[in-house]
Amino acid sequence: MHIALSLPERESSPWMALFADALPKATLERHEPDRSPRGDVQQADYVVVAYPSKTLFVEQPAPKAVFTVSAGVGHVLALANLPRGVPLVRVEDAGMAAQMIRYALTAAMRFTQRLDTYRRQQHAAQWIQHRPRGPSQVSAGVMGLGVIGSAIARALAVQRFHVRGYARSRKDLAGIRCYAGRDEFAAFLDGLDFVVSVLPATPETAGILDRDAMMRLADGAHVVNIGRGNLVVEGDLLALVDSGKLSGATLDVFREEPLPAAHPFWARPEITVTPHVSGLTIPDETVAQVADKIRALERGEAVSGVVDFVRGY
Amino acid sequence: MHIALSLPERESSPWMALFADALPKATLERHEPDRSPRGDVQQADYVVVAYPSKTLFVEQPAPKAVFTVSAGVGHVLALANLPRGVPLVRVEDAGMAAQMIRYALTAAMRFTQRLDTYRRQQHAAQWIQHRPRGPSQVSAGVMGLGVIGSAIARALAVQRFHVRGYARSRKDLAGIRCYAGRDEFAAFLDGLDFVVSVLPATPETAGILDRDAMMRLADGAHVVNIGRGNLVVEGDLLALVDSGKLSGATLDVFREEPLPAAHPFWARPEITVTPHVSGLTIPDETVAQVADKIRALERGEAVSGVVDFVRGY
Repeated sequence: MHIALSLPERESSPWMALFADALPKATLERHEPDRSPRGDVQQADYVVVAYPSKTLFVEQPAPKAVFTVSAGVGHVLALANLPRGVPLVRVEDAGMAAQMIRYALTAAMRFTQRLDTYRRQQHAAQWIQHRPRGPSQVSAGVMGLGVIGSAIARALAVQRFHVRGYARSRKDLAGIRCYAGRDEFAAFLDGLDFVVSVLPATPETAGILDRDAMMRLADGAHVVNIGRGNLVVEGDLLALVDSGKLSGATLDVFREEPLPAAHPFWARPEITVTPHVSGLTIPDETVAQVADKIRALERGEAVSGVVDFVRGY
Repeated sequence: MHIALSLPERESSPWMALFADALPKATLERHEPDRSPRGDVQQADYVVVAYPSKTLFVEQPAPKAVFTVSAGVGHVLALANLPRGVPLVRVEDAGMAAQMIRYALTAAMRFTQRLDTYRRQQHAAQWIQHRPRGPSQVSAGVMGLGVIGSAIARALAVQRFHVRGYARSRKDLAGIRCYAGRDEFAAFLDGLDFVVSVLPATPETAGILDRDAMMRLADGAHVVNIGRGNLVVEGDLLALVDSGKLSGATLDVFREEPLPAAHPFWARPEITVTPHVSGLTIPDETVAQVADKIRALERGEAVSGVVDFVRGY
């Protein structure tokens, strides 16, 4: 069995070593993304993509399956040469869900405790107490109710936040008021104090958090994005922070990553910027999952996590 | 029944109204802390202290009981005229425990997720990912295992932190390794990544977190103080933050409050300063509890929360 891997150069060696351990009989080849495509490369049975490359599928037009090592697949779907007749398999929670739940919960607790306000007061050496606020006084919404979003909604409910959920299709989660589809999106947003998005990047979700949407939130609301960068209209968010409509935001994903040094988000004390770390891939868990699925495919079994090209996730 | 209340001037009216509602047959009098003691004041059956006054117990030397509206009583025990033969009754969790648990848990999550590091990177517009770290990779210690400390220890254990507890006397808490007394204090501290103190202010706990104690923590540890300000030797903490031994601290209580504008803590990005808000008294719950205890004492019943003058809490 031959496997081609598209990996960023500086992170290649641990991944290669982990795959070599997990699939000792396979031959592994690191695809070199920055050179012209070659016609003489060995055809791979499987392709693993961490890092998008324009030439990868020119060289490897017909693997048995393509694996991503991320939950999001928008960057792979965007590759013009991606073979459409081959299963594209995304990583399903290789330690990322627990991280994202904790990230979202921490953002909700920080907001509720007004830690950003106290941080700004600290810069001015101001000792001003604000009235205590608990989760039971906060309406929190979760956009996206897949494995990760549902778990975030439950974690917020356990802490006694009032939780609403929004998804494309109808979901039924105990203790969480669920809204389905764009027809119910406005009702989902109305008066929310806190909203966290874990939606995938699809044509339907692009720019879903625009000015109109965010104006429906409660005054002083806080927006968290750990889904994909293009869910939020960044200029609209910035204008609403500046106007005071939003008290702030916690953003882990951006339209352009790394976030350019000149981007206004960096300098806004109301906005917490983290460098796409809310759900970092944990290499050993990811490799174990991909290797298990390759073995299953070799035995002729079906695997989970196959991307629906129409839905986009 | 006559009740004298020592309250800060700007906060007096809601407290007076709440006590008037809760004990409609009592006569209430606000003690004026800033004038010379008078000999002609009506002797109170009960005294309620929110705000320490040097003249309060000169005027009221023999109430049936003294109530504090805070869990901490160090500021009342420090009053030279406090009548020692009269029960001193402290508030027991009038909504404060839940707040303090959330404050401590949020500090632990922030530390684990390296949010202070990302905040400092944000100031420099730096996009640098650090490896993910979960609670199961963090040793967290709780100093003080009363109602609040035990609940914090349990909340950290639920999130899968490795939790140790320290108290004056032996405690037995499921899933938490407990250390008792000063003989075991060093073993409690050794290698902790995160420590939160909710100890009361007593002669034994003053300065307990000094250089020697904090040097026992893991390199890069984080110190949280939501107990009393004099538990931490502030100069030692500052020096250990500056040396890098500690990665930071989250401090809600200080030797002098409000924290003086010139205090170096304000300007340190590694130190999160909040203005004594981790367990704010919730007036209606506090008044209901004090009124219940006054009624119990009037019926000749015992009440909980009576301070042991020797232990100091």
